Amino acid sequence: MLQRAGSSRSFPKHFNPGTTGSSSGDSASVPDHGSKVSARPETSLLVLNAPEPPPPWQELSGRVRRAVLAEGNRPSSLTKWFVSVLRGLFPILRWGRHYDRKSFRRDLMAGLTLASLGIPQSIGYANLAKLDPQHGLYSSFVPPLIYAVMGTSRDIAIGPVAVVSLLLSSMTQKLVDPYTHPEAYRSLVLTATFFAGIFQASFGFFRLGFVVDFLSHATIVGFTGGAAIVIGLQQLKGLLGINHFTNNTDVVSVIKAVWFAVHQPWNPDNLLIGFSFLVLIVIVRSIGLRKRNLFWLTAITPLLSVILSTLLVYLTRADKHGVKIIRQVKEGLNPSSVKQIRLTGPFIGETAKNGLICAIIALTEAVAVGRSFAAVRGYQLDGNKEMVAMGFMNIAGSLSSCYVATGSFSRTAVNVSAGCETTVSNMVMAITVFVSLQLLMKLLYYTPVTILASIILSALPGLIDIKEACRIWKVDKMDFLACLGAFLGVLFGSVEIGLLTAVIISFAKIIINALGPKVEILGRIQGTDTFCSMRQYPSVVETPNLLILRIDSPFLNFMNANSVKERILARITGGGDATMTRFLVLDMSNVTHIDTSGIPAVQEIHKKLTSNGVRLAMANPGWRVIHKMKLAGLVGIIGEEWIFLTVSEAVEACGRGNEEDDSSSG
Amino acid sequence: MLQRAGSSRSFPKHFNPGTTGSSSGDSASVPDHGSKVSARPETSLLVLNAPEPPPPWQELSGRVRRAVLAEGNRPSSLTKWFVSVLRGLFPILRWGRHYDRKSFRRDLMAGLTLASLGIPQSIGYANLAKLDPQHGLYSSFVPPLIYAVMGTSRDIAIGPVAVVSLLLSSMTQKLVDPYTHPEAYRSLVLTATFFAGIFQASFGFFRLGFVVDFLSHATIVGFTGGAAIVIGLQQLKGLLGINHFTNNTDVVSVIKAVWFAVHQPWNPDNLLIGFSFLVLIVIVRSIGLRKRNLFWLTAITPLLSVILSTLLVYLTRADKHGVKIIRQVKEGLNPSSVKQIRLTGPFIGETAKNGLICAIIALTEAVAVGRSFAAVRGYQLDGNKEMVAMGFMNIAGSLSSCYVATGSFSRTAVNVSAGCETTVSNMVMAITVFVSLQLLMKLLYYTPVTILASIILSALPGLIDIKEACRIWKVDKMDFLACLGAFLGVLFGSVEIGLLTAVIISFAKIIINALGPKVEILGRIQGTDTFCSMRQYPSVVETPNLLILRIDSPFLNFMNANSVKERILARITGGGDATMTRFLVLDMSNVTHIDTSGIPAVQEIHKKLTSNGVRLAMANPGWRVIHKMKLAGLVGIIGEEWIFLTVSEAVEACGRGNEEDDSSSG
Repeated sequence: MLQRAGSSRSFPKHFNPGTTGSSSGDSASVPDHGSKVSARPETSLLVLNAPEPPPPWQELSGRVRRAVLAEGNRPSSLTKWFVSVLRGLFPILRWGRHYDRKSFRRDLMAGLTLASLGIPQSIGYANLAKLDPQHGLYSSFVPPLIYAVMGTSRDIAIGPVAVVSLLLSSMTQKLVDPYTHPEAYRSLVLTATFFAGIFQASFGFFRLGFVVDFLSHATIVGFTGGAAIVIGLQQLKGLLGINHFTNNTDVVSVIKAVWFAVHQPWNPDNLLIGFSFLVLIVIVRSIGLRKRNLFWLTAITPLLSVILSTLLVYLTRADKHGVKIIRQVKEGLNPSSVKQIRLTGPFIGETAKNGLICAIIALTEAVAVGRSFAAVRGYQLDGNKEMVAMGFMNIAGSLSSCYVATGSFSRTAVNVSAGCETTVSNMVMAITVFVSLQLLMKLLYYTPVTILASIILSALPGLIDIKEACRIWKVDKMDFLACLGAFLGVLFGSVEIGLLTAVIISFAKIIINALGPKVEILGRIQGTDTFCSMRQYPSVVETPNLLILRIDSPFLNFMNANSVKERILARITGGGDATMTRFLVLDMSNVTHIDTSGIPAVQEIHKKLTSNGVRLAMANPGWRVIHKMKLAGLVGIIGEEWIFLTVSEAVEACGRGNEEDDSSSG
Repeated sequence: MLQRAGSSRSFPKHFNPGTTGSSSGDSASVPDHGSKVSARPETSLLVLNAPEPPPPWQELSGRVRRAVLAEGNRPSSLTKWFVSVLRGLFPILRWGRHYDRKSFRRDLMAGLTLASLGIPQSIGYANLAKLDPQHGLYSSFVPPLIYAVMGTSRDIAIGPVAVVSLLLSSMTQKLVDPYTHPEAYRSLVLTATFFAGIFQASFGFFRLGFVVDFLSHATIVGFTGGAAIVIGLQQLKGLLGINHFTNNTDVVSVIKAVWFAVHQPWNPDNLLIGFSFLVLIVIVRSIGLRKRNLFWLTAITPLLSVILSTLLVYLTRADKHGVKIIRQVKEGLNPSSVKQIRLTGPFIGETAKNGLICAIIALTEAVAVGRSFAAVRGYQLDGNKEMVAMGFMNIAGSLSSCYVATGSFSRTAVNVSAGCETTVSNMVMAITVFVSLQLLMKLLYYTPVTILASIILSALPGLIDIKEACRIWKVDKMDFLACLGAFLGVLFGSVEIGLLTAVIISFAKIIINALGPKVEILGRIQGTDTFCSMRQYPSVVETPNLLILRIDSPFLNFMNANSVKERILARITGGGDATMTRFLVLDMSNVTHIDTSGIPAVQEIHKKLTSNGVRLAMANPGWRVIHKMKLAGLVGIIGEEWIFLTVSEAVEACGRGNEEDDSSSG
């Protein structure tokens, strides 16, 4: 019964395309101005005779074509095509030929500095991801190597990052407990990494770069701030040397767990060591920020802290008195993890979803990092190639015991400060990590766990940007709401809830704004032919007997057609001076799309106006709008001679019609 | 690390509001036209000095205020206020005073005709909803009575309808099997009805009429067509007298079940009786359609068929030979069902969701029916009051053993044809149903089940509108996709999958259209000051040294700011004759909203253009856009003197700047 009921919305059925007179047969009460208006501006013919807009699938097929033909122009032979594809995939083949010793010297220095920061950070983030320390190092070896040959950014430093580590562990531990089933947990993390790689590469191949834009600037500010606090709270476990901690990430659970733990007997030595080194790192950083030439000091302090604290524990044998130490770190190169990737089983759907979320968050961070440094250094980043490179590096990573790696902001900043020239600095870092994996892992036996917490904690303040949140509040309250939603969601719900809240708020904002039935009254700016909104420009003047309305929505569709219709009719039938109105000019400039609910709405407006003795004129209908109106026969109903290119032409024609009426009636 | 990475998107920080000169300090290579352009049109001052747009919450609070104060104007005393609220809630208090005997006579006739159609239909729909027959009759008694005093439509006939019955049973039987646990099933149906009523009333109170618009015209055409086929297939059970049928509604399951059933021994008498009466009803309807004065024949044929077939079975005792009969129908008035509404328990969430979906579908049908007949008869329907009335009638219904009732298209059409004047015809029908519930239920003992299937089947062709689907295809291919999605989803998935598919397609279309980064090149229509898209109007001409681009999206936000930026910059840095460009005029007419990602994008465009020696001018930024640009300090960066009201003013100013440069360099 539903559909017949919709018949009031159905299309005009009695339309004769040959007709050019106005169909004022709807009601006999309206004088037919149509036939009298002979001096139609030629421009209105342009409106009616515009070429057909391209069909919706043409744009789509164009996108696919551009994606398949790498460089746009067809190469002459198969060999050349192969070479061009290779060069597209591996930018190193292009810049590698001009690479010289001077650049290498700079990259070498940058790479070594990077490694000194990256090694302790990677171990810390592996801890955050609830994996063994070596997995953090693995992830700083294979992915940077792959990125070095495939990436287009010269600055990005690749490796595990805090937010993705937190995200991955908080989502995966809902499926399998990392402490009771470490093998199964690791398998799920690697599978999620594999999926993340597949998704990232697909986004790049199919040029779906816009997925990265799903997270607005405001969302990222809020989300990162919340995640930083959550990560900080997680570090309390290491810093206080707590044995039994919660698996939840929300503030309430963590504070409860800490509260419970500190009421048990506990060893303050962990806190003492951790806090001392945290203070050291923070002081060194503040010096580094003031004196730019001491930045290397900032970069190596984490490594120094690890070395110092390890020595301290080793010399004092503090591990016997309750200071937790890392103990065994597995030596040697990344082992293959092909067999740990399970594409079947009960958690496959969940794991794929986790992979997708990590893929998007990792890309968002990497692309933002890459773009900001590319802008500073004045080169263009190819977003799609970046995504392909990230995808391949994570696929390769997942097969060699790495978890999701991406471009890290803190390490990229160090890389740039250390004077990197190309991605070779990533290679140098990877090789340094490789060497330490082979030789130095034994030395980490006595490293206190609490120092890893200090290193992570020291990196967090950079993630909380209160100033930026204030700016967002100032400029856009709804954006601030999305920011706050992400922040509070992460803090009191979970990482996923925070993201979901923010995405929902952002999209709701788009839909509300797109569909809010805004109908503006226009008036003439005195002495000109320009017609503007009376609310925006209070000085404009109205024309007698004439109402000019602009639909301020890009759509006239199922969601807003009824309310737009009601608002317009309320202006006419609402009484008051509206009863004097004899012409309604509808400015359609802003309407770019109309659908099968919008067309009947315009038709009903015309019908109702006609029965109220008001003539409808339409100005500047968009390309797709006039095309669909022609298809649906609505042009014939309104009357071709009442469709104009500009508001001023419509107003002039109405003025003429008015005078003629007056003279004929007078 | 995420957020800092976004620093490339952060706001301009070095902005001095007092500055009026262009900030060409970005790059020394650009001549500072700014100071030379003294003859700025006054109109551009209007752009800069527009009043602040209302904050987003003002619109929201306005909506709530309008909802609370019923009629808009504050009544003087409490009594008057009470009376006005009462009159608002019960329109019968207004029109009831002028109700006369003549109107009553017409309503009486209409109500009796309605009852003769409504009684057999209600029993059939109760069967479709997998409830006992009396529940259909209950639902044709209490809800119409409530609606009669609260509704604003004079034509709508209230009762159970096919689509909602199918929806309710298909969703509820996933929770509890209606055959093995009829009590629990009924309880869930009544609870869903209660929720539906609560939701409907809330939509009305909070003026959320737009929820009804969630389903586009195209969606409804597809959904109803699919539902009609599904309902038809469900009737095969009754028509063939099958004992074991499937609980699934999709085509594949039903055809399998029928295939299996007809390969067992079965009695063709059911099919014979059902089919004969189906043919009878269809023939009478086709006569009724041709001769309008015989419409009453169409209306009473279902009742006649019930009486005839019951007599037939009774006289031949066909029930002993395998013809299925209704047997016991409980006599008496609606029993209270307050205790069957369970607001606790495991299914409460699911049931509330079912209630919400039924509420929306029922409202969509009722509002569409009401609107189409109100349009024909020339009165205005208050959508919010309708929703409140529907809500109360379903709440009351759920407390008195009724399931979801709404405005039925087929019965409303009969009501109108029979000459109803007011909702009194609904009362007459309700009283007739009441009388038959009290007295005539025993007579239904021998009514064959198959006749109910015939009655439902005979109403189905009206639900499938192939012509309308063709029109949708012609006008809007994407709408057709939504229509097809709903149709196939209902047919091969389930009712919910069909709805979800269509809603997702519809919303995806909005978001894709809103965010597609369309940047149009504009040109001047020769001999005018009008600038139009070169694609829409191929005859327009470009201006030398000048590129005019219009952003054809209502938003410049996180979703499209990057791609819009890239498209615009590609025009300038893309080589070819673009290198001659010295001015870029950005027409912002269509951009109504900009967010904290859009503003940095414009800033980057300005920066990049400046470094390429191109001057950026902006024309006609919207109200909210100029306000946010001012807040973010972007106006100062672009330079106040490069912001214009119209494209033609911007072009003129660029022309002057160009000449001055030429003369100074020449």
